[in-house]
Amino acid sequence: MKALVYRGPVRKEWADRPMPTVQAPTDAVVRITKTTICGTDLHILKGDVPEVVDGRILGHEGVGIVEEVGAGVRNFKVGDRVLISCVTSCGKCEYCKKGMYSHCEDGGWILGHLIDGTQAEYVRIPHADTSLYPIPEGLDEEALVMLSDILPTGFEVGVLKGKVQPGDSVAIVGAGPVGLAALLTAQFYSPAEIIMVDLDDNRLEVARAFGATKTVNSSRGNPVEAVLELTEGKGVNVAIEAVGIPATFDICQGIVAVGGHIANVGVHGKSVNLHLEKLWIRNITLTTGLVDTYSTSMLLKTVIAGKLEPKKLITHRFPLSDIEKAYDVFENAAKERALKVILYQ
Amino acid sequence: MKALVYRGPVRKEWADRPMPTVQAPTDAVVRITKTTICGTDLHILKGDVPEVVDGRILGHEGVGIVEEVGAGVRNFKVGDRVLISCVTSCGKCEYCKKGMYSHCEDGGWILGHLIDGTQAEYVRIPHADTSLYPIPEGLDEEALVMLSDILPTGFEVGVLKGKVQPGDSVAIVGAGPVGLAALLTAQFYSPAEIIMVDLDDNRLEVARAFGATKTVNSSRGNPVEAVLELTEGKGVNVAIEAVGIPATFDICQGIVAVGGHIANVGVHGKSVNLHLEKLWIRNITLTTGLVDTYSTSMLLKTVIAGKLEPKKLITHRFPLSDIEKAYDVFENAAKERALKVILYQ
Repeated sequence: MKALVYRGPVRKEWADRPMPTVQAPTDAVVRITKTTICGTDLHILKGDVPEVVDGRILGHEGVGIVEEVGAGVRNFKVGDRVLISCVTSCGKCEYCKKGMYSHCEDGGWILGHLIDGTQAEYVRIPHADTSLYPIPEGLDEEALVMLSDILPTGFEVGVLKGKVQPGDSVAIVGAGPVGLAALLTAQFYSPAEIIMVDLDDNRLEVARAFGATKTVNSSRGNPVEAVLELTEGKGVNVAIEAVGIPATFDICQGIVAVGGHIANVGVHGKSVNLHLEKLWIRNITLTTGLVDTYSTSMLLKTVIAGKLEPKKLITHRFPLSDIEKAYDVFENAAKERALKVILYQ
Repeated sequence: MKALVYRGPVRKEWADRPMPTVQAPTDAVVRITKTTICGTDLHILKGDVPEVVDGRILGHEGVGIVEEVGAGVRNFKVGDRVLISCVTSCGKCEYCKKGMYSHCEDGGWILGHLIDGTQAEYVRIPHADTSLYPIPEGLDEEALVMLSDILPTGFEVGVLKGKVQPGDSVAIVGAGPVGLAALLTAQFYSPAEIIMVDLDDNRLEVARAFGATKTVNSSRGNPVEAVLELTEGKGVNVAIEAVGIPATFDICQGIVAVGGHIANVGVHGKSVNLHLEKLWIRNITLTTGLVDTYSTSMLLKTVIAGKLEPKKLITHRFPLSDIEKAYDVFENAAKERALKVILYQ
């Protein structure tokens, strides 16, 4: 089969690879029908994730059709349409029992990381019963690819850990796909204001169309002062960090109100300077986390009910065999006005 | 009357000051019978809290007898024995209505800070109905002085914000009075292990007598490695920071387990380096806060029931007029084996 293979920092290759097969009774093999590219894949390609070895197939999002199942798989059979979770979970370890699937002792984020991933014609999914979701009849597959990672990430790590409440003021720093996923799902809880902060006017325009009540372009003026001005000097109840660099974390700690939450969603490569000399007295809560994907079924129901339209996040489509072109577009997202790209076969 | 007066950095004076009087209908004047010295008073004397002006009477803890009440005070009358909360709250503002009394718009921590405090023969208490607590018959006044600040601080900002649960492993970094208050109140929730970390063997011995299951002297070897070794490499579910310097915060971020809590109790004068490049993926929660004293009534009930013995924290006693001697002892706490000192009149 064909797959997108990591060849060490900066290099990738659309190459021939052996067909995956069932290795454990709990495995399934899935034929990919739709997949996508994540910001994390770009991190890997930069060499920021050294556990990813030369030869690894990238990708941790997708939907497909079950091609083969191991003898221990109970919930799925050949021919089933399935959503692949970016987090693999055994369902049996200490962490899974607490719902912290991201830290599963025999899983977690392994697809396209520690085992071969979804940017391929076929993929092996370990612990299929607890790592795949059935796709209900009539649902649009493209939309569901957004539920593999970015929607549960924005929702769980941003909105739920940030404890967005009705009437709250919320700021989301970073209007990339995950920040926009937080924007869409924050609206489940009816905050009074959602202020979107980004460097790119196009993304801020998208954010307004997606429900942001106010926007701040952080390349013009001081974004902390701008957000404080929009909140009568009090700051926001919830600040969601959706970039992963010290400058955007700094904005969050400058705008969080007394008693407020900072929910860090961004993947950070460097430490940050935390202003405890100001924050110790302000009764704030800071959370971090990799997505657990415990909310996938909940999000599926919101899609079915029409409360969430994940398809809005898709701007570009390519045949899977054109994935290298798709990477070019995604790597130049601002110029290309790209959010999420869909690869189909 | 006599009072301990701040005279600018490093200087204090036991001086004559005018008797406080009722200034608003909601005020009470209390004759102090017992008071104490807090680590925060030492911070003020170092000049770390610049809002404290020359001439301010220090102190924010104490018990006493109501001497005079304003026309609007309903819950207290002259002659009542009362516990003074370190946090003054109006009970009416947005923050008070949320139980976040520490940020009361007409109160918060003001005693011995923005208004005259309790290290005096008499003190004026604004918003008496919501800032004083009646002392039940038969209770030891000395013990209750510990409920003005340090016990609710260790309990609310350490144990409750840290969400200590039955079976948890807990580490408390700093075995001073507030760290020991966290140690005593953490035991309400039956954690499996409470590891106390401090530089001072005497304080660690006290901690063991107070219920610590293990102790680590951080002046010998690497305290992070020591705590990881005591927890099978996993770290602790709850790390309570009870010092307020970068080195102790660092220990906490090094020992917190996946999914764990860091509850910052320490008063920090400097920023810290937060290792988000390691912590972003670990599903941790970091909390900060000034005590709200919403738990004072709850703690009073635990004292009455014999579940909490605050008197253990008292090591030295002086007449109020000898308060300068008491400061000398408290400033040399390690050498003097001092925890809390009581000043009485």
